[in-house]
Amino acid sequence: MANEKMVKSITSMDEDFAKWYTDVVIKAELIDYASVKGCMIIRPYGYAIWENIQRLMDGMFKETGHENVYMPMFIPESLLQKEKDHVEGFAPEVAWVTHGGEEKLEERLCVRPTSETLFCDHFKNIVHSYRDLPKLYNQWCSVVRWEKTTRPFLRSREFLWQEGHTLHATSEEAKAETIQMLNVYARFAKECLAMPVVKGVKTAKERFAGAEDTYTIEALMHDGKALQSGTSHYFGDGFAKAFDITFTDKNNNLTHPFQTSWGTTTRLIGAIIMTHGDDNGLVLPPPVAPIQAVIVPIASHKEGVLETANAMFEDIKTVCRAKLDDSDQTPGWKFAEYEMKGVPLRIEVGPRDIADGNCVVVRRDNREKTVVPIKELAQRIPELLNAVHEGLYNKALERREEMTYDARSLDEMIEIAENKPGFIRAMWCGERECEDALKEKAGVTSRCIPFEQEELDGKCVCCGKPAKHMLYWGKAY
Amino acid sequence: MANEKMVKSITSMDEDFAKWYTDVVIKAELIDYASVKGCMIIRPYGYAIWENIQRLMDGMFKETGHENVYMPMFIPESLLQKEKDHVEGFAPEVAWVTHGGEEKLEERLCVRPTSETLFCDHFKNIVHSYRDLPKLYNQWCSVVRWEKTTRPFLRSREFLWQEGHTLHATSEEAKAETIQMLNVYARFAKECLAMPVVKGVKTAKERFAGAEDTYTIEALMHDGKALQSGTSHYFGDGFAKAFDITFTDKNNNLTHPFQTSWGTTTRLIGAIIMTHGDDNGLVLPPPVAPIQAVIVPIASHKEGVLETANAMFEDIKTVCRAKLDDSDQTPGWKFAEYEMKGVPLRIEVGPRDIADGNCVVVRRDNREKTVVPIKELAQRIPELLNAVHEGLYNKALERREEMTYDARSLDEMIEIAENKPGFIRAMWCGERECEDALKEKAGVTSRCIPFEQEELDGKCVCCGKPAKHMLYWGKAY
Repeated sequence: MANEKMVKSITSMDEDFAKWYTDVVIKAELIDYASVKGCMIIRPYGYAIWENIQRLMDGMFKETGHENVYMPMFIPESLLQKEKDHVEGFAPEVAWVTHGGEEKLEERLCVRPTSETLFCDHFKNIVHSYRDLPKLYNQWCSVVRWEKTTRPFLRSREFLWQEGHTLHATSEEAKAETIQMLNVYARFAKECLAMPVVKGVKTAKERFAGAEDTYTIEALMHDGKALQSGTSHYFGDGFAKAFDITFTDKNNNLTHPFQTSWGTTTRLIGAIIMTHGDDNGLVLPPPVAPIQAVIVPIASHKEGVLETANAMFEDIKTVCRAKLDDSDQTPGWKFAEYEMKGVPLRIEVGPRDIADGNCVVVRRDNREKTVVPIKELAQRIPELLNAVHEGLYNKALERREEMTYDARSLDEMIEIAENKPGFIRAMWCGERECEDALKEKAGVTSRCIPFEQEELDGKCVCCGKPAKHMLYWGKAY
Repeated sequence: MANEKMVKSITSMDEDFAKWYTDVVIKAELIDYASVKGCMIIRPYGYAIWENIQRLMDGMFKETGHENVYMPMFIPESLLQKEKDHVEGFAPEVAWVTHGGEEKLEERLCVRPTSETLFCDHFKNIVHSYRDLPKLYNQWCSVVRWEKTTRPFLRSREFLWQEGHTLHATSEEAKAETIQMLNVYARFAKECLAMPVVKGVKTAKERFAGAEDTYTIEALMHDGKALQSGTSHYFGDGFAKAFDITFTDKNNNLTHPFQTSWGTTTRLIGAIIMTHGDDNGLVLPPPVAPIQAVIVPIASHKEGVLETANAMFEDIKTVCRAKLDDSDQTPGWKFAEYEMKGVPLRIEVGPRDIADGNCVVVRRDNREKTVVPIKELAQRIPELLNAVHEGLYNKALERREEMTYDARSLDEMIEIAENKPGFIRAMWCGERECEDALKEKAGVTSRCIPFEQEELDGKCVCCGKPAKHMLYWGKAY
């Protein structure tokens, strides 16, 4: 245990942010690399975070009337091709199954990159009348996209996600659903991940393949890069027409229904790491932390220490996900270990504390120490966890505000993009040409047209013609 | 709604059991057929059963100290080939990915048929010392086996399952784990599925590819066929040697660890259907039923009926998964619908009941009616659900006992196999030749060597030589 500190030391953020990120995912034991390039093994601690995300988000889906289903993982090539824009968007990056056992398949199957086509095929079978609508479905599964460059959680060839797919009698209903689910994502980001997000709509260029509109929540990472953290798509009746889905409406007319889909992925774990993490490792928002409070006994060989620590553990495990570490590692090793793993509260208890009837609670987010009477500990923990959550959210929001810049000319935009990592707010005329030019000249992409608009200027930052919208621009993961 | 009865009518079991089964899975809305042959779409009602199975079983896994992880869905061909018996067993039935986007892969990848090889590859990375052991892992995922003949839930090309994979310092520990998990499965079958099972060990012929021993729980279906419902494998250190997994033991010797794996699948839903179902459809054991009690108001247009039904619903939803069906379908339609869906308790309430302060509770398993004072309903529901569960278990156990026959000669075995569907108990010498001969002559396979042995005879039912074990034989899914 001599080199304990060395074993767990990580690159500092300022030195090399990408390396810091990789160090954290490995040292906090979130993942291991797999034998297939670009895929990852999600280890117990990482998977427990995902299970918490699933449980909390699934609760929100069920509150809003959604049901879970499971679709096959394979899509026949002919089915993928039914919607033109969709196949163009996905075909270049799918994995193809060509053989079953020793036999060559008559038709190639792709491993689902997303399941719109499968849901459409199913909807066609089960929807006939307005009485069958709406269908409000979701599935939790893994999908595959054969990416060239990959990074754990942020971009991997296989990833876990949820994909909602809904079908409605009217376009108004479908549009309302699209916005409702974007709001669910934004609420989840705030309440469960302590992560502030900008809500908005994507430009035509950045839309999902086959969608009429793509809405997004965009978060800002520590290094000033944007992370698209959840998207919600309105399809109109385009897929329904391509797949020939019809229903008899209340007036007995045969008509096409309207569709949405929306998704979030294990990328959210990457978002947590890069929003809250620090040079000591992971910092987890309490709602998704596998361990919310860890008790570290000090001088545990002394009489009464382990007994007290055990009693405290029995007491607090009723109010939070608690752990008592009574292993033979040193307290120093344990402090570093649980800091690396981002446990929101550390509770220290030693002979002197016990003599005073107290323990010391240390917050992971700001290292603030609070002396708490042992008998009040269980009662105080919820408020301390709330304090960590609010602290994390406010710190992230403050940082985002500090790192959001306004540009009123192309030169200003280039200057900010080169020197100041963060979001850039700027006006835009609505033309694809200007969007492309900004990418080329300033190296930024449009993140979204935010719902909360503000007129920074009357003219487009790029061409100077009358502006239509204020946009968030930035470099992105 | 005129032909409501017709719409939901199904083939009777006696007429055509296979057709009855298919009718139930479709009419109870458990599945829809998918565009890929041999795959299935699990619809909300079917998936809700699986979610209950997952939740309850996962709780048992966590109680016994297991952690969930997620492994990639792809296995490189070279990795699959590392353990000789394993690759021989699985290679003929895997789906092969040969292309990523437009590029041909350097090495083919199979879609996991099971993940021993992936876990071994990971264990090799993370296990170094006895302090790292045991590793007690599980994962919930989908797997693919390219079967020729498929049936919903029972045998499909893709299915959902859990696969436990554990690594231990000693063979004793690994053996104890194998048996412990078989017992967990047997307890789950009884407590959550109301399904009696025979616990035992497979013959060498029926072992999992690569295992030293395969333990199984075998259930008997309505039609007298056996269903292997869960298996637990002891691997010795065979995989560890093939994958070069080593650790330093307490005496500082480098040695190989010992391994297990164990799994259950969506096949359990097929087991529920064929254990408890009847000519009116599905019959669900309460622990996994998506709806445990449904309230059907009678003459709901009459004053006070819907109000009372609503109040009852608010009351009972705190003690069970409840539903109030206040739709405009007739009570008769609703009765048939919820019988088809196997809801354990139906609660009828109409004006006359309300006048008396009562409602009528009807059990799905035996149609027994109980008049219950409305104000006692919530309090009585748990015992009524228990009664359904016990009723189902006892009926299934009784049937299995009636359908279990002893054979003391080959002629007797052939006669029973031809005329009496069910389990056949018979003595066996332990030779593969006799096992093969029984398959050929009587059309039965060995199901297991049960833990509970009984000496029916001194000699093998096939060759007449001294017998080693009493076995369960039968036709199987």
